[in-house]
Amino acid sequence: MWILRINMTDRSVKFEDVPEKYKYLAGRGLTSQIVYDEVPPLAHPLGPSNKLIFATGIVTGTSAPTSARVSAGGKSPLTGGIKESNAGSPWAHDLAVMRIKALILEGLPEDKKTFWGIHLSWDADAGKPKVDFFDATEYTGKDLYEVAPKLFERFGDRISFAGCGVSGEYGYGNAGIVYNDLAKRPSRYSGRGGLGSVMGSKRVKFIVIDAKGAPGVEIVDKALFDEGRKKMIDAIRSHDITKPKGGLNSFGTAVLVNILNEAGGLPTRNFSSGRFEGAAKIAGEAIFETNKQRLGKDLYNHACSPGCIIQCSNTLYDENGKEITSCVEYESDWALGANCGIDDLDAIGEMVQLCNAYGLDTIETGCTIAVAMEAGVIPFGDAKGAIQLLHEMGKGTHLGRILGAGTETAGKVLGVTRIPAVKGQSMPAYEPRAVKGIGVTYATTTMGADHTAGYTIAPEILSVGGKADPLSNEGKAALSRAFQATTAFIDSSGHCLFIAFPILDIASGYQGMIDECNGVLGTKWTADDVLRIGSEILKVERAFNEAAGFTKAHDRMPEFMKREPLPPHNQVFDVPDEVLDAVYAEL
Amino acid sequence: MWILRINMTDRSVKFEDVPEKYKYLAGRGLTSQIVYDEVPPLAHPLGPSNKLIFATGIVTGTSAPTSARVSAGGKSPLTGGIKESNAGSPWAHDLAVMRIKALILEGLPEDKKTFWGIHLSWDADAGKPKVDFFDATEYTGKDLYEVAPKLFERFGDRISFAGCGVSGEYGYGNAGIVYNDLAKRPSRYSGRGGLGSVMGSKRVKFIVIDAKGAPGVEIVDKALFDEGRKKMIDAIRSHDITKPKGGLNSFGTAVLVNILNEAGGLPTRNFSSGRFEGAAKIAGEAIFETNKQRLGKDLYNHACSPGCIIQCSNTLYDENGKEITSCVEYESDWALGANCGIDDLDAIGEMVQLCNAYGLDTIETGCTIAVAMEAGVIPFGDAKGAIQLLHEMGKGTHLGRILGAGTETAGKVLGVTRIPAVKGQSMPAYEPRAVKGIGVTYATTTMGADHTAGYTIAPEILSVGGKADPLSNEGKAALSRAFQATTAFIDSSGHCLFIAFPILDIASGYQGMIDECNGVLGTKWTADDVLRIGSEILKVERAFNEAAGFTKAHDRMPEFMKREPLPPHNQVFDVPDEVLDAVYAEL
Repeated sequence: MWILRINMTDRSVKFEDVPEKYKYLAGRGLTSQIVYDEVPPLAHPLGPSNKLIFATGIVTGTSAPTSARVSAGGKSPLTGGIKESNAGSPWAHDLAVMRIKALILEGLPEDKKTFWGIHLSWDADAGKPKVDFFDATEYTGKDLYEVAPKLFERFGDRISFAGCGVSGEYGYGNAGIVYNDLAKRPSRYSGRGGLGSVMGSKRVKFIVIDAKGAPGVEIVDKALFDEGRKKMIDAIRSHDITKPKGGLNSFGTAVLVNILNEAGGLPTRNFSSGRFEGAAKIAGEAIFETNKQRLGKDLYNHACSPGCIIQCSNTLYDENGKEITSCVEYESDWALGANCGIDDLDAIGEMVQLCNAYGLDTIETGCTIAVAMEAGVIPFGDAKGAIQLLHEMGKGTHLGRILGAGTETAGKVLGVTRIPAVKGQSMPAYEPRAVKGIGVTYATTTMGADHTAGYTIAPEILSVGGKADPLSNEGKAALSRAFQATTAFIDSSGHCLFIAFPILDIASGYQGMIDECNGVLGTKWTADDVLRIGSEILKVERAFNEAAGFTKAHDRMPEFMKREPLPPHNQVFDVPDEVLDAVYAEL
Repeated sequence: MWILRINMTDRSVKFEDVPEKYKYLAGRGLTSQIVYDEVPPLAHPLGPSNKLIFATGIVTGTSAPTSARVSAGGKSPLTGGIKESNAGSPWAHDLAVMRIKALILEGLPEDKKTFWGIHLSWDADAGKPKVDFFDATEYTGKDLYEVAPKLFERFGDRISFAGCGVSGEYGYGNAGIVYNDLAKRPSRYSGRGGLGSVMGSKRVKFIVIDAKGAPGVEIVDKALFDEGRKKMIDAIRSHDITKPKGGLNSFGTAVLVNILNEAGGLPTRNFSSGRFEGAAKIAGEAIFETNKQRLGKDLYNHACSPGCIIQCSNTLYDENGKEITSCVEYESDWALGANCGIDDLDAIGEMVQLCNAYGLDTIETGCTIAVAMEAGVIPFGDAKGAIQLLHEMGKGTHLGRILGAGTETAGKVLGVTRIPAVKGQSMPAYEPRAVKGIGVTYATTTMGADHTAGYTIAPEILSVGGKADPLSNEGKAALSRAFQATTAFIDSSGHCLFIAFPILDIASGYQGMIDECNGVLGTKWTADDVLRIGSEILKVERAFNEAAGFTKAHDRMPEFMKREPLPPHNQVFDVPDEVLDAVYAEL
């Protein structure tokens, strides 16, 4: 395996042996360690010293189920702290089978006008990957749905790509990194934290991989791996949330809309209520029923990436049976729907499609539009106006630039003081005043407000991995800490985080994950090691953030959430500071 | 004396006795202490928990020369840290003679549409000030030059006022607090740090004082005070910089343009060079010569506030002998001139007038326009375009809001990575790569980049208070520390900082300042106490900032200054981090 280092200052390429210290690191564990080791904490995120690192997980590229995941890492233009943003895509699989343990993009060219494409292929003669550059300027300034097919036309059907949209070219704080899905759509995202702009700052538009002939992933102990794989498959296939025609496969992640609304934790109209009267109209069940009516059949969901057996990605069709978008995730549905007071499913679908077209993080974008609504730019519930705002972002107008900078900056510019963000990153689709544990995660994670960093929603709302009262503060530091550490490991394993549902409830599934990793790496990790390794990753990330100027003061909720009671429970965020501080103090 | 507390939530008024711990504090020392004591460090600067505090200096309101100064303090919307911004105005004198030691504005009304005026007068019967409120909504949304005369018409010629412009109504990060000068112009500013928006957030448009009948300042030891006053007057009148028809009285602060240009330290075109080819055309000498030509006589400068014997405020006249603006300070001249590549004095005068009209800090505004020029919004040197950008700010368009948010935020939104700011506040008119000591001050002061916080320019460029090589790092921590501590005292004494020129060179002048203060307060301070008291103020400010989340990482120069050599000396900012850290570590 290699560390592939591409310096965009002079487009030089180096294949480096994997240093001993990185041997057992992968995914998030590896991107975060390289950021810590190589990026100056005070580097400008869009300057020459920042780096963009891609690393696949331990089992990515193998036949382990639901494991075609890649971590993108760097210093975030949105938060100013460390960032890992994880996505599922064929690209992850292709990077892994090329035996590229990490791809590091560094430097930036003096010529700011030319954008570059990077083409990776397997050189059978040399027995290693081959790196070519191509002028990608012709693909800039355009809708990704227009550009993506041209890549397949030019480089063949079997390629996969990572890239940035116009948002990354503009340097927006809410620019994600886009990858293709299995149907070649530019629709899978390392969405959060603005890493698309780090890519854009380096004048890289696409990284195309043609993995034909690539040797695949080495597995040290195949028998153990297969044993683990079987346990994992059994767990996924038997859990109500992840089994075929189960919650996720039927209704997608948007199955959460009704559940969170019922719990009073669905942030509505810029986090001013926990209930949305239009929730049922935009819920996962409504997507299923709408498709059924329009297509005349039950439509179950599909996989975003090779080898996924959960298959949670939906597609929304219009009245003529034409695809509006794929997919409408819960977070996107909520951000562009409930949080903007919009209950029009087709409009939400169109907005998701526009986020994908322009390379925008749907969560940050929806939160920003809601803040613009609070500022009076357009009224709450104005779907047409919201679509127009998305086009402003796509065109890079002054208003578009304000919104593209992300929720916190847009709020500052537009004069809004109720800004639902932590460390500069907007909050996702779970109200911390109604679900206290997720608030602890938002406040303390190294990532800025992020549900995936420690998804306490599982026990607090879904009764997965135990049960916890969402409105109580009791035990929430320990709960969030355990979820954050476990998550850091899962994000390194190469598995989609959704394996957490089955493996937290089914012990053999948890052991299956460990067996798979031990099988690939030849390690002898136990469940204790999962928490130890996860904790070590968090400590490295925390150390980077501290050097970048983060303190306890940054592990706090915005003032308005401590002051304004949230309907329907009429609670404020009242987790004491000591509890928040305990999360990392006792790591 | 009283602490006057006005809560804008319900427009309630309290006169409080001065607590023992505030007895010897005044000016900056008092505003910073009250901010530390009363403002939650994580309060939103424009939310209900922030406070805006006005406090005059120890000798303000007496016959001490050049002492009609007031400190405005609060949590800064621009930096997120503590802020003290100091101005000279008749208003300072009037507040002092009413025996209001500090005026604290707190809370904010639910009704956001009504703006209030506060009218203070002396109630002879009650033997204390009287507070009335008036609806000031009619004065909002307008040019301050249009509005200010209406205040004098309505409340009489002898009033003075503090207020905010449209920028403060909009909540801009670069909104200053405006005061009238002696000729009733709305032209004196607590410019830096966005405190005008704190005022606007509380829906206060003006604070009008009619000091008729007010009792004046109590002086404990009149003889000692008079002795000190005489020493101070003698020092001011005999120093080349401050004497009648001396440097400041002849050419104003803009006398520095040629001096800094010669030193290679005049930041030009968004801090990309230390020399401006058009410097001579915009220098203080050019202002003097232009007026001479247009008026047919030598025009010496005038006082901004009662009792000033330095009289450094210039007026720029147009070809018809009509006033363009008053005054063109060095900082404004540089920010809107050299830093934007503009060498047209009349255009710069017009821009200063527009900043005053809209309530904008000239430094932050000029730096922001330069960043917009770097972003390509308009070209460098485009005076007409720059004037148009000022009107955008005044109108509150989307572009105007981007610019009004200040240099750092505007840079982020417009995609510029070369942002000359520290702690979110843009750098003033001295290039830290050419004058290292002032860079140490920029990096470490509690205020964000601020020359007035520790004006090492005196020894580094002007040979005042000793001599130091501007290009050397040698001894710069100690130098900046001494200047920062002394300044914190001077900012509390009530004197204009320009007394530093004579008193650093003339020992009896320095003793005069101490005698004046001891005379007013009945204290027995010595020169050691000046440094001790100044240091204590800095420690309080630093403690607030630490609680607000500031660390050593915030005491650093922007990355580009450590990387890009600055012509003509071709030096980078190379002061080691340990030197920066030593400034406060050894306080």
